Amino acid sequence: MKRLIAGPHAIASAIDAHPGQITLLLLAEGLHPKTRKSLVQSANRHNIPVQIAAREVLDDMGETLNHQGALAIAGEFPFVDINAILSRAARQTAPVLVLLDQVQDPGNLGAIVRSAHALGAAGLLITRDHSATMTPAAVRASAGASERIPIARITNLSQAIATLKKAGYHVYGACGEATTALHQIDWRGPVALVLGNEQNGLRRLTRENSDILFSIPMQHHFDSLNVSVAAAICLYEIQRTRTALG
Amino acid sequence: MKRLIAGPHAIASAIDAHPGQITLLLLAEGLHPKTRKSLVQSANRHNIPVQIAAREVLDDMGETLNHQGALAIAGEFPFVDINAILSRAARQTAPVLVLLDQVQDPGNLGAIVRSAHALGAAGLLITRDHSATMTPAAVRASAGASERIPIARITNLSQAIATLKKAGYHVYGACGEATTALHQIDWRGPVALVLGNEQNGLRRLTRENSDILFSIPMQHHFDSLNVSVAAAICLYEIQRTRTALG
Repeated sequence: MKRLIAGPHAIASAIDAHPGQITLLLLAEGLHPKTRKSLVQSANRHNIPVQIAAREVLDDMGETLNHQGALAIAGEFPFVDINAILSRAARQTAPVLVLLDQVQDPGNLGAIVRSAHALGAAGLLITRDHSATMTPAAVRASAGASERIPIARITNLSQAIATLKKAGYHVYGACGEATTALHQIDWRGPVALVLGNEQNGLRRLTRENSDILFSIPMQHHFDSLNVSVAAAICLYEIQRTRTALG
Repeated sequence: MKRLIAGPHAIASAIDAHPGQITLLLLAEGLHPKTRKSLVQSANRHNIPVQIAAREVLDDMGETLNHQGALAIAGEFPFVDINAILSRAARQTAPVLVLLDQVQDPGNLGAIVRSAHALGAAGLLITRDHSATMTPAAVRASAGASERIPIARITNLSQAIATLKKAGYHVYGACGEATTALHQIDWRGPVALVLGNEQNGLRRLTRENSDILFSIPMQHHFDSLNVSVAAAICLYEIQRTRTALG
């Protein structure tokens, strides 16, 4: 399946990270000369063909994507496998991996990818069934980060968790009902942070497979946070406590 | 201007908080009986007329809204003024207010409203010009919180900041280039937390009017966070340090 990358920023990141993936760069007439020049230069450097087209052509191709005058046609999203993530993460002394248990909204997925990269996670594992995948909307919401952080799609989350545990990871599940608060956790060592579906949270088996369940303290008992917001708060807190430890 | 509230959850919150605002409740044929019963009961309690319609009617009315089988027609969004927010916040010893300097995406605005409510902020002040307002998409992204936390629309942010300072607030501006890190700040006392536009951050005058500028530490220098994610991390950190202080 071909995919579209929308927006100058996401495209620049994609060319940077996986130039061989991009088969065509489409730029709208009237695109800001500076943006255009910089994209054309990167494309030329990697022999990516560039085509200028009317803005309407991009609107049609990009459908609901906010292309901002630039669309790239690319090969399939470059998912990696769990072993590739593990061996890359092993270069760090205490890597953090983000696991998503059936997160369904592509905007949330993309936002989590963006935060994971910015807040120092080493990779993401996302479930394959009943889950958002790296659609153009997700890639765009990631603001370029999807080309910079490795992402694996997994069929069996329980099996993936078992693999991570064998590799020395502790598994922390975010779960609104848990009584342990985020800030009470000792985040040293390799961390697998698991977040669940927008409506239902973690599945029962995922909860059972977690070493620790925790929640983010909230003001009112009926409140909840968006899953991408919850992910970012957890990653911030992990980074903060580690910095505090020196 | 009439507005639409989309989705059973947002509608239930709206009926709860401002029943007088809702002029009609539209439910799709085939809506889950439990959801339908509970919405109809709330509507009856407040003499709100209910109409059952084909799902296509809701699709047409709701345009791009994800109505999930329920739409409510309501009066204008119940913005309050800054004085109402200040007098309500004054009941707390160290209230936190969130100020948005030209945040443009309704989804981001709604997500910030949701996090602000869940993480204990006393109110929001949003700019009027070049800014998202509480559109149906923003209300929906707030997951019911827009009916529970007071929101003021302000024409002049500098003037609002001056008013807040006079009322004893310290003004903290989130700014990617600032060298002070979020976790280095002493968050005691009344806090006005200011976040800026998705592309350009805080305007120059807003930066100058802030008592302290700070940034959220990130892994790579070119990274940035979505503004709704940044807002939530700041609110979490304020709450965490205050809890730690007892």
